[in-house]
Formats: sequence, C-alpha cells, structure tokens
Amino acid sequence: MDSDALDAVRLLATRRLPGLVVTDQAGTPVTILPASQVVRLLVPVYVLEDPSLAGVLSESIADRIADKLGGKSVAAVLPKPPPDMTTVKVDDTIIEVAAIMARNRSPLVAVMGAKGIVGVITAPRLLEVALGSH
Amino acid sequence: MDSDALDAVRLLATRRLPGLVVTDQAGTPVTILPASQVVRLLVPVYVLEDPSLAGVLSESIADRIADKLGGKSVAAVLPKPPPDMTTVKVDDTIIEVAAIMARNRSPLVAVMGAKGIVGVITAPRLLEVALGSH
Repeated sequence: MDSDALDAVRLLATRRLPGLVVTDQAGTPVTILPASQVVRLLVPVYVLEDPSLAGVLSESIADRIADKLGGKSVAAVLPKPPPDMTTVKVDDTIIEVAAIMARNRSPLVAVMGAKGIVGVITAPRLLEVALGSH
Repeated sequence: MDSDALDAVRLLATRRLPGLVVTDQAGTPVTILPASQVVRLLVPVYVLEDPSLAGVLSESIADRIADKLGGKSVAAVLPKPPPDMTTVKVDDTIIEVAAIMARNRSPLVAVMGAKGIVGVITAPRLLEVALGSH
C-alpha cells in the first residue's frame, strides 16, 4: 500500500504482469493494482472521452508518468473503490480456483497459506496447469 | 475463427498470454479470446453461482477441457456477443494507444499496418515502453 507507485509500475512493466497484489503493512493482500488501471491513469480524462484529442496533447507520456506516479504511494493510484482481493486457499482444487477466478472476473488470485500469502495464480497459468492434467 | 479451440488454449497457456487476437480467414482481426473467458468456460454454471459446490463436482478439470474444447472451433468458445476488437494504427502515438486501450478496457490491442495486423500490444508492454521513454 505505501510502496512507491513508480517502483510498482516498473515491476508490472519489466515482468509483464497483468497486475500486482497489494498488501497492507502486515503482508495481508487487500487489493489488486491492474496494469489496465495504470494505463487509464496515464491518459487525461478529456482524451479518454475522445481519443482523437491525444494528437493535440502537449504533455509527453514521460510527463504524464512523472505527474501521475512520481512521489505517490500505491494507495494513491488505486482505482476508487479498489477492486476486491480474490484469494484461494493452498488446498483448493483447480476447479475451485477456476470458479472463484471466473466468478470474481479477476485476472489473478492470491494463494493463502497458514502464514499469509504464498503465491499468485493468473488465468493463463491456471489454464497451463489444467492442460497439463489433460 | 475456425482454428481448433484446444490448440488456441494451449497457445494461451504455454505463452502465458492474457488473450489471443482472433482473425477471420482473410487475416482481419475480429475479436479477442481472453484467458479469463476460457477459465469461465471450464466452470459449470452451478459452480460459478456457488463456488463451494466445486467440491462435489464429479468431473475432473481434464474432463471439462475435453468436453468444452475438444473438437470445437475458436468461434464456438467465444463469449456471446464476442468483445469488440480494439485496433490501433502503426503510426499512432503511445498516448493514443493508451487512450484507446483505456477507453475500451481492453487488455490488448491489435496493431494494423497497410497490409493487415502487424502485432499486438498488451497493457504491461505499453507501460514498459512508456517507462523506457521516461
């Protein structure tokens, strides 16, 4: 939550992640920062409403990044309200994970063990495991 | 559109893609097959409505894959109605691509040149390029 927003976006970008799990100070996952939300943040509202106006934008993408992410916390750039965190348990079956992911339309779920988060499963990774058992 | 659905999902899974661009026979992109849609397809409707019922499901995930994807075309497993295809032009700027992606809430866009599709940009890839120019 209080990590640097620019560091978080660098992590999203360099690892090509669809989103990051955001935890509180105790390490409990509380929400997701989706890559799509960060893209939205970089686009001024009037350009979002009419993409043809992007051509007349005087700011560069670098300016937008500095303006929207520089010196901010992850908490400050989350969607309002932040998406619910979708979690599964380490002993859930693949079908249970698929059901929870599909029901919540979540691109990723956090996997919780007895001592907190132990990993993350994305939709393509779930399909990879499902096909492996085929 | 008429590719084998199981081959398409294998591609999604092994390349860990958030989705595939689906083209018609002429190679024109017409829609997206998102990984999340395939996950939905693998979950029976009654389990989608109540994930706790996943425990009593007699079918394995392998059975579900064979049942839902085996011998089917990509067209048969698309969401109804299929999502609009989001395209950008090769000479669009990063801000234009970001605006179009954000406006359509699309996890990926197809890039169109004079002779058809030349590539695909995902949200994390767009962020990678934007940060590179920072």
